[in-house]
Amino acid sequence: MPHDDKITAAVLVIGDEVLSGRTKDRNIGYIADYLTAIGVDLKEVRIVPDDEPEIIRAVNALRQRYTYLFTTGGIGPTHDDITADSVAKAFDVGIDHNPEAVRILLEHFKAIGREANEMRMRMARIPDGAELIDNPVSKAPGFHIGNVFVLAGVPKIMQAMLDGIAPQLRRGAIMLSRTIRVDAAEGDIARPLADIQSRHHGVVIGSYPFEEDGRFGSNIVLRSRDETSLNAAATEVDALAVTLTGTDLPPLWS
Amino acid sequence: MPHDDKITAAVLVIGDEVLSGRTKDRNIGYIADYLTAIGVDLKEVRIVPDDEPEIIRAVNALRQRYTYLFTTGGIGPTHDDITADSVAKAFDVGIDHNPEAVRILLEHFKAIGREANEMRMRMARIPDGAELIDNPVSKAPGFHIGNVFVLAGVPKIMQAMLDGIAPQLRRGAIMLSRTIRVDAAEGDIARPLADIQSRHHGVVIGSYPFEEDGRFGSNIVLRSRDETSLNAAATEVDALAVTLTGTDLPPLWS
Repeated sequence: MPHDDKITAAVLVIGDEVLSGRTKDRNIGYIADYLTAIGVDLKEVRIVPDDEPEIIRAVNALRQRYTYLFTTGGIGPTHDDITADSVAKAFDVGIDHNPEAVRILLEHFKAIGREANEMRMRMARIPDGAELIDNPVSKAPGFHIGNVFVLAGVPKIMQAMLDGIAPQLRRGAIMLSRTIRVDAAEGDIARPLADIQSRHHGVVIGSYPFEEDGRFGSNIVLRSRDETSLNAAATEVDALAVTLTGTDLPPLWS
Repeated sequence: MPHDDKITAAVLVIGDEVLSGRTKDRNIGYIADYLTAIGVDLKEVRIVPDDEPEIIRAVNALRQRYTYLFTTGGIGPTHDDITADSVAKAFDVGIDHNPEAVRILLEHFKAIGREANEMRMRMARIPDGAELIDNPVSKAPGFHIGNVFVLAGVPKIMQAMLDGIAPQLRRGAIMLSRTIRVDAAEGDIARPLADIQSRHHGVVIGSYPFEEDGRFGSNIVLRSRDETSLNAAATEVDALAVTLTGTDLPPLWS
């Protein structure tokens, strides 16, 4: 696979049910972990309703800004599944029943004894010029057009599709990270931490407070694509953590 | 509270840690449920990194499109907490230590025996013209400027802040919903469901397939602000479900 310095991505979750709270999204966190692990930098996520103009708007904004856009949801057989048509409009191309997708679905429905009715065959509607993405779980394919990958919303199917397309993605250098636990209030380490950050520009340092049995500390996360830089900054944060060893966890935030 | 027909909202989650997958967001689903329950229509969610230009860009895009914008994250004491400064720039106003916030924090740090150092007092930096949002958990306030509500990222604190501001939010008619389980493959109900949708424009009908012990069905969710319309459409979906009663759940998707 090509190996570039900085490969970026966005995720677009499509679905009224996520915005209403009825369904709790389980795809964003999974894709975030997945992309980080293969050296693709997730830069933005959006969630939009099942509304054609909103989907078109988001697809066009995101595909133009990032190396890749992954969408989830809206590719089933029912009337509210409008992702394929919306993506076709975003690319200003036609959409029709794709012969290969039709073949896959007809074979599948025959094998399981289901009627290949008009609505089921909607799942074979694929924008012109797109390539199919294999769906080993329930056959109805996703697709890939330009830099946009259109995946299912059902987590199990989305995950299988992601495994299928991962080998063809360009990858950047893997983001390395180290987490150092500091048993102190954020407010007591914020100054030395800011000083460490100012000395190490190639490392991004974040502070994430945690609660444990009603007492509080912070996990300091250092991230860099360069191991030497990461180790240099981590050594300083380790030293900061050591000076606080034996300190009781503070009983309150901040 | 004023009662308008359509009150909309967006959520902006700010944090590298959510995009890297390290932290799994727990605020989006909570806020979605909360807003739906009080008649505010969540229309869009974005997740962006701890990066000032990205935050400014998202704040300005979202505050101009929706009645309210709620942000989470980035208001702690460490160097990576840049939400307040970014929001001030988005509104093109100054930012400084807010006297009321300073008073709250000094009193709090004195009470718990913490040093009111420079970094802790960063949490009193509030954009000019903003009003404070009470933080009953850890005192450091959120704030409210224009139609933007800046909340903490820690779920417990975010939730308490939301309870505090809810009484001042304008509310629309509550979205009513009914869920009807259909023990059939989506592909077998898609046509009658589309027909029902076409006869009931005031009702949004969604189909959400589910898996149960390796067999599949679909939950049909009907949503409307008008009870009569909702009941009319639900009667038709109920009838559809009844015709399928006693059918075994199909063993495969779609």
